Amino acid sequence: MSDEPSLFDAPDAPGGGRSRLRLVLAYDGTDFHGFAAQPDVRTVEGVVSKALEKILRHDVDLTCAGRTDAGVHAWGQVVSLEADPGVDPWRLRDALNGILGPEIVVRECELSTPEFDARRSAVSRTYRYTIVNRPEPDPFLARYAWWVQPPLDVAPMRMAADPFIGSHDFSAFCRRASSGASSVRRVIGSHWVDLGDGVLRYEVTATSFCWQMVRSLVGTLVDVGLGRLRAGDMRAVLESGDRQRAGQIAPPHGLCLWSVGYSSA
Amino acid sequence: MSDEPSLFDAPDAPGGGRSRLRLVLAYDGTDFHGFAAQPDVRTVEGVVSKALEKILRHDVDLTCAGRTDAGVHAWGQVVSLEADPGVDPWRLRDALNGILGPEIVVRECELSTPEFDARRSAVSRTYRYTIVNRPEPDPFLARYAWWVQPPLDVAPMRMAADPFIGSHDFSAFCRRASSGASSVRRVIGSHWVDLGDGVLRYEVTATSFCWQMVRSLVGTLVDVGLGRLRAGDMRAVLESGDRQRAGQIAPPHGLCLWSVGYSSA
Repeated sequence: MSDEPSLFDAPDAPGGGRSRLRLVLAYDGTDFHGFAAQPDVRTVEGVVSKALEKILRHDVDLTCAGRTDAGVHAWGQVVSLEADPGVDPWRLRDALNGILGPEIVVRECELSTPEFDARRSAVSRTYRYTIVNRPEPDPFLARYAWWVQPPLDVAPMRMAADPFIGSHDFSAFCRRASSGASSVRRVIGSHWVDLGDGVLRYEVTATSFCWQMVRSLVGTLVDVGLGRLRAGDMRAVLESGDRQRAGQIAPPHGLCLWSVGYSSA
Repeated sequence: MSDEPSLFDAPDAPGGGRSRLRLVLAYDGTDFHGFAAQPDVRTVEGVVSKALEKILRHDVDLTCAGRTDAGVHAWGQVVSLEADPGVDPWRLRDALNGILGPEIVVRECELSTPEFDARRSAVSRTYRYTIVNRPEPDPFLARYAWWVQPPLDVAPMRMAADPFIGSHDFSAFCRRASSGASSVRRVIGSHWVDLGDGVLRYEVTATSFCWQMVRSLVGTLVDVGLGRLRAGDMRAVLESGDRQRAGQIAPPHGLCLWSVGYSSA
């Protein structure tokens, strides 16, 4: 439409270079094949890139803080990209939400320093995993929480979550990556929150995670809560580096990339 | 399968009469055309009746406490029905949840007295209506809450919710029913709860409600919060019986039939 406000009426950036943008995205991952763009399937990156390209009228290349798998949700996914200079981030946010919402929501959109890179600048990632532990499922949490029917013993699950804190080789809890890649990660926080009414939440923060690590940790902790594994053995399982000694892999739909930490420097 | 446990191995009820069952249902109403069975569309009653008939192997006739509209949810919908004698309610619950869950969940299933009727025995219904009042929508509440973008002034909304309490003719807030039907209802509770983070919940309890009454009350209260109507005028709007003086009708997806009250007599 001719009276559509231009997104480009802000003054050009000093020096005339391109603008770097930082977006914070929340999304319901149920109907996406994960974040990363792939041919012929619907992904978060694919849908967001297409909307950005429609609005900005140039190609974009997104970098994200955490490549969530199919079915995994995000509340605080961070994305960076370059845009032509002069874009108004507030108008861009509203225009994106008009196209993408409410399945994907741009919670924040701002100009960042040219050095900012959503992945490489990140110093920590926090994931939350939600479990409904009741005799019957919950229709309102079915998309966002793993329904575990048998009663869980939470005390040993709390104990078993402790040894993960610190720098360890998490090979026992990682799907094998490309050969030679390190599985050493530093976990900063690892604990359970009992939200009442049978809703349990595991929250884990690390500098970064290897593939399926959070779901493997959660599945193993649930196996502890079901009495299949012992909390006291968790350190030995971790040190063994043996995937056979870890527990099940929790399903993706209980997982949510909650927040990403950046250094203030 | 031949080793499937029979649902009918409990001893017959004394006197050999039929059993009356009371079920409490929770459901995500998003993908249903309301509760009441209708030809050629998917309804909660239709889906639950079909599952019951498959398991019980006889026709069933459901009575519900509140006929929720298309898109409206329930946490505590109550349903009564007659079944052949000897049915085990625990096994029936598990069998139903195996077919229906997690979209519809049977939270309780028990034998009741022959006089029990989910609709006529009910003495009160409580509905909850959830609003997300933020600049941007929330992907995780999008199915269960009304997103209201402009900031709401909650204080007058609380004031305006008060005059509804008591016995009144709610014609101003009811879609016209069949001619001659009374619109007098007794409201027992009517208040707002601020859940933080921009999430507001309206909770209303009445002996019963007329058609679209809760959504009309909520829409009108939101119009008060937006400054379109004045809290001090609410009593006059109620007394006028004039639908033109009430506000908008809130969308169905924020509404949930929360609980139904029965006399202990």
